[in-house]
Amino acid sequence: MSTIYLNGEFLPRSEARLSIDDRGFIFGDGIYEVTRVVDGTLFESNRHLRRLGRGLADMRLSPSESLADIEEISLRLLRENAMTEGEGMIYLQITRGAAPRTHYFPPANTPCTVFLAPQRFVVPHDKRSTGVSVVTTPDTRWSRCDIKTVNLIPAVLARQYAVDCGVFEAIFVRDSAITEGSHTNFFGVLDGELRTYPASNYILGGVTREVVIEVARELGVPFVERQFHVQDLPRLEEAFLTGTTTDVMPVVQIDGRQVGSGRPGSITMQLYDGLARRLYGNVPAAFAR
Amino acid sequence: MSTIYLNGEFLPRSEARLSIDDRGFIFGDGIYEVTRVVDGTLFESNRHLRRLGRGLADMRLSPSESLADIEEISLRLLRENAMTEGEGMIYLQITRGAAPRTHYFPPANTPCTVFLAPQRFVVPHDKRSTGVSVVTTPDTRWSRCDIKTVNLIPAVLARQYAVDCGVFEAIFVRDSAITEGSHTNFFGVLDGELRTYPASNYILGGVTREVVIEVARELGVPFVERQFHVQDLPRLEEAFLTGTTTDVMPVVQIDGRQVGSGRPGSITMQLYDGLARRLYGNVPAAFAR
Repeated sequence: MSTIYLNGEFLPRSEARLSIDDRGFIFGDGIYEVTRVVDGTLFESNRHLRRLGRGLADMRLSPSESLADIEEISLRLLRENAMTEGEGMIYLQITRGAAPRTHYFPPANTPCTVFLAPQRFVVPHDKRSTGVSVVTTPDTRWSRCDIKTVNLIPAVLARQYAVDCGVFEAIFVRDSAITEGSHTNFFGVLDGELRTYPASNYILGGVTREVVIEVARELGVPFVERQFHVQDLPRLEEAFLTGTTTDVMPVVQIDGRQVGSGRPGSITMQLYDGLARRLYGNVPAAFAR
Repeated sequence: MSTIYLNGEFLPRSEARLSIDDRGFIFGDGIYEVTRVVDGTLFESNRHLRRLGRGLADMRLSPSESLADIEEISLRLLRENAMTEGEGMIYLQITRGAAPRTHYFPPANTPCTVFLAPQRFVVPHDKRSTGVSVVTTPDTRWSRCDIKTVNLIPAVLARQYAVDCGVFEAIFVRDSAITEGSHTNFFGVLDGELRTYPASNYILGGVTREVVIEVARELGVPFVERQFHVQDLPRLEEAFLTGTTTDVMPVVQIDGRQVGSGRPGSITMQLYDGLARRLYGNVPAAFAR
């Protein structure tokens, strides 16, 4: 049984309980982060904390824990859960606290709910070696997808649609443009150029997305922030997804149609290797080429 | 201390606790209803239950409680809380239950979380006699506003914007059309014709909205389901909001500009009287004209 953090206390997960009046439950009135853990360290912690800080400001949330406290709590959870080796993640959620139901904000002295929990996880190397299939689905989301809120019904329904289709992920289409996946960002290669949807209010600017863009620049891969439209998809030479628990995941089929050679692309795997070097200091044996 | 219902149990509200893994908290993965209570009876219960049934189907939620059970639980809560006289409401929320976090649905045997709580409330007659002010705000919401989900951040932020502006409500503008308020539907009168945004995926089809439309037809008030655009607002003769806890609320100012005479309109108050007759069997003394 793991130890988690909830509102100032470290306690067994089985004992963690929420008020029925928590605005996370009543309104989905909160934001979250998932940070990758490798051998007890937080990968790209500063980027996650920076995004968290922006989200707190956009949502006008003021937890008593500072960003530095959040990092310290995360590291303590890793120690208390003996997660100083191997792969894992820290889930963090902050809501506007528990208060009688009003759409407007509760009284200023209402403490935010702050929840952190560590989790081990198995990196999907098996899927990476073959690549995955995805389906497109209409992007029904609101117009502030840049805030990492827990208002996640569109992502839940899209991901379930992917499961119903027997594929790994559903990618959203807004006004004919591919924005991103239900829990990943989407990249493609066309005419040798790497492209992904521009950082804007229509996507969640993923930390792995940012790292992969840096890696592409280091490797000299031509890159531009520009959307793909659905009519571009049949011509893609390569495609992949990025995410904190997805890393770089090759896409070999979109809506049943093969992408490029039908195998993970070479630019895709160079980018994965570059990400892996940052994660692990080297490329995992399973993927050393 | 009131008695509430949670997952098969009737218990004191102070003892009601949720799992930290509830998908209501983690994803806002649920729907809700608020039903008006007058002297121990549920106003327009069938319409609320019908909408609840549609929402459950759209969200693929399958609680163990039937719609008939929900109604029976509601009535029992009214009795147990001595709410057989006066004004109140029943809040109902159903989420996809507690399970390890995955965007896709949890295992099929995961029970839904079902929560009902009664609450007394004071009908805002004072505001009704003078009318209220509203402000417009961009409609940032997703494109399935017809499902009454707890993904309510846009409504929370809009309502707080109204509070910051010192007014009663914020009304959403999507592509220059007024859709509805953060927790109300919006009606206006132009050239003697009553209009409101068409029932569609861009608004929540309110129960009070439906009742008011019926009343308008009974009274022979010319009515059409057609949107107002922002450029129509300066020409409105009357405007009002409808909602389960708002009834018919006259709007006398929009974005600081006076509506019509600056006092509750005559069609507006006829419609309120018609609604009041259905709620109470007569028009409350405060409003008998």
